[in-house]
Amino acid sequence: MSEKVTALDLPMADLSEGTKAYFAKCEEKLGMVPNVLKAYAFDEKKLRAFTDMYNDLMLGESGLTKLEREMIAVAVSSVNHCYYCLTAHGAAVRQLSGDPALGEMMVMNYRAADLTPKQTAMLDFAVKLTERPDLIVEADRQALRDHGFTNRDIWDIASTAAFFNMSNRVAAATDMRPNAEYHSLAR
Amino acid sequence: MSEKVTALDLPMADLSEGTKAYFAKCEEKLGMVPNVLKAYAFDEKKLRAFTDMYNDLMLGESGLTKLEREMIAVAVSSVNHCYYCLTAHGAAVRQLSGDPALGEMMVMNYRAADLTPKQTAMLDFAVKLTERPDLIVEADRQALRDHGFTNRDIWDIASTAAFFNMSNRVAAATDMRPNAEYHSLAR
Amino acid sequence: MSEKVTALDLPMADLSEGTKAYFAKCEEKLGMVPNVLKAYAFDEKKLRAFTDMYNDLMLGESGLTKLEREMIAVAVSSVNHCYYCLTAHGAAVRQLSGDPALGEMMVMNYRAADLTPKQTAMLDFAVKLTERPDLIVEADRQALRDHGFTNRDIWDIASTAAFFNMSNRVAAATDMRPNAEYHSLAR
Amino acid sequence: MSEKVTALDLPMADLSEGTKAYFAKCEEKLGMVPNVLKAYAFDEKKLRAFTDMYNDLMLGESGLTKLEREMIAVAVSSVNHCYYCLTAHGAAVRQLSGDPALGEMMVMNYRAADLTPKQTAMLDFAVKLTERPDLIVEADRQALRDHGFTNRDIWDIASTAAFFNMSNRVAAATDMRPNAEYHSLAR
Amino acid sequence: MSEKVTALDLPMADLSEGTKAYFAKCEEKLGMVPNVLKAYAFDEKKLRAFTDMYNDLMLGESGLTKLEREMIAVAVSSVNHCYYCLTAHGAAVRQLSGDPALGEMMVMNYRAADLTPKQTAMLDFAVKLTERPDLIVEADRQALRDHGFTNRDIWDIASTAAFFNMSNRVAAATDMRPNAEYHSLAR
Amino acid sequence: MSEKVTALDLPMADLSEGTKAYFAKCEEKLGMVPNVLKAYAFDEKKLRAFTDMYNDLMLGESGLTKLEREMIAVAVSSVNHCYYCLTAHGAAVRQLSGDPALGEMMVMNYRAADLTPKQTAMLDFAVKLTERPDLIVEADRQALRDHGFTNRDIWDIASTAAFFNMSNRVAAATDMRPNAEYHSLAR
Repeated sequence: MSEKVTALDLPMADLSEGTKAYFAKCEEKLGMVPNVLKAYAFDEKKLRAFTDMYNDLMLGESGLTKLEREMIAVAVSSVNHCYYCLTAHGAAVRQLSGDPALGEMMVMNYRAADLTPKQTAMLDFAVKLTERPDLIVEADRQALRDHGFTNRDIWDIASTAAFFNMSNRVAAATDMRPNAEYHSLAR
Repeated sequence: MSEKVTALDLPMADLSEGTKAYFAKCEEKLGMVPNVLKAYAFDEKKLRAFTDMYNDLMLGESGLTKLEREMIAVAVSSVNHCYYCLTAHGAAVRQLSGDPALGEMMVMNYRAADLTPKQTAMLDFAVKLTERPDLIVEADRQALRDHGFTNRDIWDIASTAAFFNMSNRVAAATDMRPNAEYHSLAR
Repeated sequence: MSEKVTALDLPMADLSEGTKAYFAKCEEKLGMVPNVLKAYAFDEKKLRAFTDMYNDLMLGESGLTKLEREMIAVAVSSVNHCYYCLTAHGAAVRQLSGDPALGEMMVMNYRAADLTPKQTAMLDFAVKLTERPDLIVEADRQALRDHGFTNRDIWDIASTAAFFNMSNRVAAATDMRPNAEYHSLAR
Repeated sequence: MSEKVTALDLPMADLSEGTKAYFAKCEEKLGMVPNVLKAYAFDEKKLRAFTDMYNDLMLGESGLTKLEREMIAVAVSSVNHCYYCLTAHGAAVRQLSGDPALGEMMVMNYRAADLTPKQTAMLDFAVKLTERPDLIVEADRQALRDHGFTNRDIWDIASTAAFFNMSNRVAAATDMRPNAEYHSLAR
Repeated sequence: MSEKVTALDLPMADLSEGTKAYFAKCEEKLGMVPNVLKAYAFDEKKLRAFTDMYNDLMLGESGLTKLEREMIAVAVSSVNHCYYCLTAHGAAVRQLSGDPALGEMMVMNYRAADLTPKQTAMLDFAVKLTERPDLIVEADRQALRDHGFTNRDIWDIASTAAFFNMSNRVAAATDMRPNAEYHSLAR
Repeated sequence: MSEKVTALDLPMADLSEGTKAYFAKCEEKLGMVPNVLKAYAFDEKKLRAFTDMYNDLMLGESGLTKLEREMIAVAVSSVNHCYYCLTAHGAAVRQLSGDPALGEMMVMNYRAADLTPKQTAMLDFAVKLTERPDLIVEADRQALRDHGFTNRDIWDIASTAAFFNMSNRVAAATDMRPNAEYHSLAR
């Protein structure tokens, strides 16, 4: 844990037992503590708020599969050219899909991927919400419903896309560095 | 609580005692339950994740004043033309500053306001991070340090700007409606 | 009339009797002389050219109501983030409509307002003409006709949107300050 | 006067003696009545307001030469890709300068022209005001002063650039057609 | 051949007999050696690669007429505001069409021209490919097929538009100056 | 060679002995024939023009290393979100540098890489030339010279960036698919 994870280099807090256990679990399950967690670890309250929201959004119950949520994460991060999120979540798409090329397409241009019309509509909405949130109108929501998404699904698409518009910017503002392990994962 | 707060109109969950108490406290202190809370109330876990992050960010300890954090919120929301956030946080700037015109300037164009160079630098960073996060480099962080901001302050500027890039998009995607009370507040 | 109305601070000309009478009428009817008039008053010829065009456009005969013309003014000024025009014409929308929230929606994002499809088409045209005038083609005009607008109405929509693209830029270039009275008007 | 000058094709009003004389003077001096005048001639009040403003701005007293004002007109119209104004005012630059290539450079990209630093600063300001009026701050005005422009000159640069942002949009919205004579003028 | 054709002013290589003959043929047929050829003449290999690609693309066999290929060249160069290419290829459109105004419309805004729907579709594709290549999807190709273009025609539209996106940038980066002769050609 | 390499699916020409030998050499050296070559192989003249230009540019003599030229290729393709070029040239950066993360940074955001100021200046120029070629002025060239680049180097930076602005668009317009082999190369 000695390497610099952001350009701000804020000193890590004395971690509580709970956080230590959480990091140990990350090491065990992922083989690493994702650097974004170390970046937030200068303040346990901020760390917990971040992980609570993240875990609910990406791992909680939803009409969207975990892979679909990761696809949204990467398509949004591609618009914002976020090195951290493209690296970490590009790897997640490769892993969850077992399709390395799909991860690359999400990183580079999701329009190159051979998706279902429903998934394309989902990513089109996420990307429009990213590029021009001011232009979203009822017709955009209706287009999602017409592809079979429920209102709750729309909430999940929107809040996932929105979340990565946040974390892309935290990463960009602080020059957050992804763990080196991601690069070779699931290639 | 009968009015529609988003176009998704997700049915409110049976609220726990804790949430009921929280909403009652909002009523007491603000004279209303902000609609964003009702919007998230279809799922208490999501509501709590949102309020934990929000309260820490906007009300917690920071080198930035609460007014400065609200100014960031509004300047970011102005770029994204977010009706909900401009309404609610524009009111907050008017209240905290006691200067109705300042709230309007944040909503319309923060460059019209007569701010200190340090505050201008803070908003310039927040707005660049909003418009083109991919362009942020070390020189942008250094410019903030040169104005006297610490690395921790930079984290707070960045995470506040980033948070509103998230909530602007949740609001836009769901057509979230602000409480009518905000419009006449602190005019 | 002692306060600085623009950053250029051009000395006001010796006003003719006609102009004095016009300013007195403004005071009487509006309770103030709008600062834009003082800004032009360094040269009576320029002042008269401006007011002749403005009065014809905003107060003259038209198939558009005065409120609709003010809505165009504000929607255009929102794209251009013009502090002066958003302040002055936002107030006009509030006054003419008797609906403070409508004024705010025009300032923040007209797409949030519950307008008729015809009014939405009108503002969509005005905003496209503002953002990308080079993209306007016959189909855009036809869309307005399909909503019931005549060719003369299209002229009025176009010339109102165009006028505020001019005055937004005069105000931005000179840092024109709106009269303080506007802020609390019709809230 | 039989050809269609705009897509709206509004019937020309019965012209007053004054307007007839004005048009006759145009024919005499320019060899044509510029189509923009015919476009406005459906309503003499609008025509007069337009010509009063135009004539004061482009032909009246100013610290800017007539050529410089025309250069601003064309550089602004190039950003907006306005066929009418580029044709008519490109011809004016060719005529006033006696330099056909200069007219072409203003139409295509003013940065290709070998201008004085002062003239470049003037056009840079006009173009920034056109592309992103919200970004103009005191430093932009000061840059003009540093090149020797007075505050009154800045007004003239600003109001000329602003005027063409208006007329570009009237022309675009109505598909205004320039007189064929312009194309071969001063080549 | 003494004038400076680019800001880089790279010394012309000792030309081979083949190149000398090619330049002589240009002089004979066009009355000049186009400056782009002189710009590349510092290295004959680069010159040959450029002319081979150019001649095949613009003069070789294709379902597109030479005029249509030149129209694409100019419409693309208009987006990129390329002084060299607008000058040289604007002249080519005037010459090949015998319609000086058509050349001007391509330079200024192709949407002002009275084209067939098929030609408009061709230029719409070329311009979208120029402005936002990442947005091209199968529907864009299908729109061309629906207007009667074959897959080979689509290749030619695409590769012509793409080529000028290259040469616009070589010209912009090096400040390439067009031959003075172009300005008065076919007016 | 049976898979579809573009959405246009143009039938491959009967290849000459020369081309067959060239493709065999590709197989031998790279383990594949890059799909871009197959895409052009419907017409040997076009194929040769493309490979002549490409080979001179990317493999010929230059003050830029082959790695630097590949870095330009990828940074440009990142702006244009070109799936084909990011895949093929991202692999080249990984191979030539022996640094898989560097390839990823070029694909995602070159500003995240720890480059020399000279290399950053090179990529800043290439990316500005990609995003806004119309804005390049002498100061941009001078900035490169100040970092030690010669005029010939500037030509090479410019023409490499320009070339990928072309090939990105050919690939986007035709939905060109990269060889699957690239994805796992040099990870």
